[in-house]
This record gives sequence, C-alpha cells and structure tokens, in this order.
Amino acid sequence: MPLFRAHVQVSLRPSVLDPAGEATRAAAIRLGVEGIRKLRIGKSVELELEAPDRATAQRELERLSDRLLANPVIEDWQLSLSEVEQQP
Amino acid sequence: MPLFRAHVQVSLRPSVLDPAGEATRAAAIRLGVEGIRKLRIGKSVELELEAPDRATAQRELERLSDRLLANPVIEDWQLSLSEVEQQP
Repeated sequence: MPLFRAHVQVSLRPSVLDPAGEATRAAAIRLGVEGIRKLRIGKSVELELEAPDRATAQRELERLSDRLLANPVIEDWQLSLSEVEQQP
Repeated sequence: MPLFRAHVQVSLRPSVLDPAGEATRAAAIRLGVEGIRKLRIGKSVELELEAPDRATAQRELERLSDRLLANPVIEDWQLSLSEVEQQP
C-alpha cells in the first residue's frame, strides 16, 4: 500500500495569548537577544501513513488534525502531504 | 532596522522515545485511522527579530535555538530565516 509522509503544523490562533512564548521571549532578553518582536510556540507533527491513495490519506489526516492534533477552539493547523517513493 | 522572520523546528532525536506521539497514534486508531506507521510530535517556533544584518540575526537565532528553544540532549533543531520587506 502506498506510504505517505505528512507534516501537520499546529499554531495558536492569532487572538490567543501564548504565555510560554512570552516567557521564552523574556528569557531571550536575559540571554542578550533583545530584538525579538514576536515569538509564538506551536506544535509540529511528523507522520507516516499507509493509505490506498492520496485522497484517502488527505481525508484521514484532515480528520486527525481536526479531532486529535489541534484544538479548533484555540488552534489552526496546516497540512502538507507527499507520497514516499517505494522500491518495487 | 531590518526585520527577519524565522521558523525553528524542534524535533526529538530519533533515538528518543515519544510517549505523547505514541498516545496520539493509539488515539488515532480508536478514531478509525489505522494506517499510521510513525507519529512524532515536535515544537515549532515562529519568530520575528530585528537585527542589523542577516548574519547577526542568524547568529542570535542559533544561540537561542541551542540554549533556549531546544534541549540538545534529546532534541535537534532546524532554522529557516528570511528577511521581511519593509516599506521605506
């Protein structure tokens, strides 16, 4: 069965505060890096998925992203998908 | 001062176990998605940084990534950097 490699990028919606990001920005200033204007922390999920075809893989990954990987109340997600070439 | 946009991708080293990823994979099976061969969860940090030039921005971001964003014992990081065009 074809193998697909996917990357789901989960990020906080722009209107949602990011206390971990703010704390990291404050720590960066203490390290001497003062020019940071923005710092937001998100999740990045790397997957490999077997599926009969690309459309099925895409559909399953969208379902996972919506229901499992991201919290749609506060997070957005972005999916990129590619097929892995396999030796015959 | 020029503004740079950066993305730091932090991922667990391949030899490090990922219990959160394993739990997510088990939950995906319960959702009916059975073809997942691999699922690893990492961090993704979006930054905007003011710096006098690209080399300085790169150096500061490498320092942050090594000392603040990633734990070098268990994590790898990858940095991508681009300059933001600004209106004069």
